[in-house]
Amino acid sequence: MTTATVPTEQVSIDLGERSYPILIGAGLLDNAATWANLPRAAAALIVTNDTVAPLYASQLEKILRSHYAAVHTVLLPDGEAHKDWTTLNLIFDALLQNGCDRKTVLFALGGGVVGDMTGFAAASYMRGVPFVQVPTTLLAQVDSSVGGKTAINHPLGKNMIGAFYQPYQVVCDLGSLKTLPRRELSAGLAEVIKYGPIADMAFLDWIETNLDAMLAGDLAALAYAVKRSCEIKAWVVGQDEREGGLRAILNFGHTFGHAVESGMGYGAWLHGEGVGCGMVMAATLSQRLGLIDAKLVARLMRLIHRAGLPVQGPLLSDTDNAGRYLELMRVDKKAEAGEIRFVVIDGPGKAAMRSAPDDLVREVIDACCVPV
Amino acid sequence: MTTATVPTEQVSIDLGERSYPILIGAGLLDNAATWANLPRAAAALIVTNDTVAPLYASQLEKILRSHYAAVHTVLLPDGEAHKDWTTLNLIFDALLQNGCDRKTVLFALGGGVVGDMTGFAAASYMRGVPFVQVPTTLLAQVDSSVGGKTAINHPLGKNMIGAFYQPYQVVCDLGSLKTLPRRELSAGLAEVIKYGPIADMAFLDWIETNLDAMLAGDLAALAYAVKRSCEIKAWVVGQDEREGGLRAILNFGHTFGHAVESGMGYGAWLHGEGVGCGMVMAATLSQRLGLIDAKLVARLMRLIHRAGLPVQGPLLSDTDNAGRYLELMRVDKKAEAGEIRFVVIDGPGKAAMRSAPDDLVREVIDACCVPV
Repeated sequence: MTTATVPTEQVSIDLGERSYPILIGAGLLDNAATWANLPRAAAALIVTNDTVAPLYASQLEKILRSHYAAVHTVLLPDGEAHKDWTTLNLIFDALLQNGCDRKTVLFALGGGVVGDMTGFAAASYMRGVPFVQVPTTLLAQVDSSVGGKTAINHPLGKNMIGAFYQPYQVVCDLGSLKTLPRRELSAGLAEVIKYGPIADMAFLDWIETNLDAMLAGDLAALAYAVKRSCEIKAWVVGQDEREGGLRAILNFGHTFGHAVESGMGYGAWLHGEGVGCGMVMAATLSQRLGLIDAKLVARLMRLIHRAGLPVQGPLLSDTDNAGRYLELMRVDKKAEAGEIRFVVIDGPGKAAMRSAPDDLVREVIDACCVPV
Repeated sequence: MTTATVPTEQVSIDLGERSYPILIGAGLLDNAATWANLPRAAAALIVTNDTVAPLYASQLEKILRSHYAAVHTVLLPDGEAHKDWTTLNLIFDALLQNGCDRKTVLFALGGGVVGDMTGFAAASYMRGVPFVQVPTTLLAQVDSSVGGKTAINHPLGKNMIGAFYQPYQVVCDLGSLKTLPRRELSAGLAEVIKYGPIADMAFLDWIETNLDAMLAGDLAALAYAVKRSCEIKAWVVGQDEREGGLRAILNFGHTFGHAVESGMGYGAWLHGEGVGCGMVMAATLSQRLGLIDAKLVARLMRLIHRAGLPVQGPLLSDTDNAGRYLELMRVDKKAEAGEIRFVVIDGPGKAAMRSAPDDLVREVIDACCVPV
C-alpha cells in the first residue's frame, strides 16, 4: 500500500430528511474533523467483530469517549455464517444490559456483515436509533455505504429479514483497506466493476486502466473507485429508495451470485466472488437474449478475472446443476410468484429487468459452470 | 351483546403515501365490500393465534381465497409471554416455507400481540411487505389500529425490538367483541378512558354516561368509542408519527403500567390492567405536581373502577416497592439517560411530559400500591 495523502472526498446522499454524507479519505478515523457532527446522546455502542476489533476498535473508542459519556463495544463472531438472529441479539443484549436509551448511537465498525446487522439492530432497537457506518472493507465502502439496506439471513434465504434504514453518516477510511486480505479486496472490486456495464462505460474504461493500481493499494485510485461507485449508486437509489423498480438494476450478477453463495453454504464463497461469476452469467444471458454482443461479455470476463475473481460458477449439483441454480433463484427476493427477474445489460452502460425462459437460463448456467 | 345493526364508520389515517382507512362496524368480516381494495398479490398469510383461529380464521380464509391464489395460515401461541423472537420466527418460517414473495399480504387476525408481531414481521420480511390488521379485541381496535407501532419483547424489556410500520387497511369488526372475555373488554376500556383526561373532556363525559352500555356489549356505543379513540389517536400521531414529542402523551398511565406488567411477569396482568392503575398513579402524580385537583383524580379512579380495572398497583417488592417501580421505569423506552419522563395531566383534557423528583414519585407509588 502507498501512504500518499489523498484529499478527503464527500458524497452527499440526498434523501430528504434522511439525507447523510459519506466521507472518503485516508486517516479519517483519527481525524477529529470526521466526527464533528455526531448526534448527541449519553451513550454510544461500537459493534464490530473479532477480526476488526484488534485493529481499529481502541482508536474509535478513544475518539468517541470525547463525545459520549459512555462508550460500549460488542464483538460479533466474524463472517456471513453468523449473520443471523442469534448474533443480532448480542447487540440487543449489549444495549439493554448497558441501559442504553433511544438516543444511543450505534457505530458499525467492520465489513458488510457488521454493517447489515448493526443497521438492522439500529432500525429495530426501540423502533429506531441513529447509527454511523465505518466500513473497513472495500465491498462495504462501495456497496453498504449507500442504499440503507440492512438485514440478517434466515436458514431458508439470504437477507430475508431486515429493513430499509439510512445511516446518520458514513466514514470510509481508506487506511483500513491496508489490512484487508487480498481475497476481500478482489471481492470488493466485483461491486465496483458492476457499475460499468449497468450505468457508466467511461467508468469501465477507468477501472480497466486503474485495476492494477487498486490491487496494489494505491489510495488515490481506491478513493476514486469508492467515490464514483457511491455516486452511481446514490443516483440510482435516489430515484427508487425502496426498490420499486430501477434500484433492482444494482443487483446485476446478484441473482446468480446469491444462488452460488446459498448453494455453497453461506461463507464458503465471498459475496463478491458469487457476484463475480454471477456477472459473467448475467452478461452471457444478456448476450443470448440479443441485448449485447459477445465482445462485451469477453471484455467483462477478462476484467473480472484480472480482479482475482472467479469467472465460472461452481457445480451445485452432480445430477441437475442448472435445476439447482433455478431452484435457489426462485426463492430470491426479486422473484415474483416464482418468476425469476434477471438484471440484464440492455446495451453497453444500461441495465434492465427481464424474465427469461428456463431453457435459456439452463443453457447459460451449463455454459458458465465448472466443478470446483 | 345486542345484535342491532350499526352503520359502518370509517376513520382515515392521513400519513401521506402511508395513509390508510380504518373500517369500524358489525359483520365486516363477512361483507365483501370490506375487502374490495386489497393489495394484489399471489399469496396471503393469515397470522392468528390458537384462541382466535377456531372463531374466525375459516371465515377470513374463505373471503381471501377469492382474492389470492394461495392463502396460508400460521397459528401463534396466545399471550404476551409469547411475544418474542421464537414466535415471530414462526411467521418467517411460514412465509419462506410457502415460497412467499415480497408482494405477499399478511393479515393480523387477533389482539394486540398478534398485531404487533404480524406488523413487525411485515416490516421486516424482505424489508417490507403489506399487512392488513383485523383486530378482534377492544384494546387492539382502539390502540393498535392507529400509530404503526410494531414490536416484540426482549427478556430485558417490553417492546424493545420493533419498527414503525403502517398497515394497508384496518378492519374493526365489532362482532368479534362478542366472543371477548369480560376481563379483556375491561382492559380495552383502559385505553378508551385514557383519551378523556389527556385530550377530550367531552369524551370523558360520554364514557361516563355510556360505560354500562359498552360493558353490556351495545354495539353502537362500542362503535362510537372505537371511532372517537381512533380519531384522537390519529390526530396526535398525525402530528408526530415517530414519537419525537407530542405522541408520547398517548403513553398516559403506561410508564407506571409497564412497570406493573414487567414486575409481575409479562402476561400476569393484562396491559390494560397495568394502564388502569397506572393512570391512577399518573393522575396522582399530576395532582401532587399541582397540575390538577383531587376531584379529577377521584373522578378518574371511579371510572376506572367501574370499568372493572384495578385502581391500585401491586406490590412489586417486599423490601423497597417504590425502588423496584423506579428501577423498572428507568429502563422504559421513554426514559432518557436514566431520567424517567412521565405523562401528566396538565389541566383537564391536556397532557404534558414531565420529569419528577424521585421522592415525589416514591410518595405517589406508596400511596397507590397494595399487596395482591
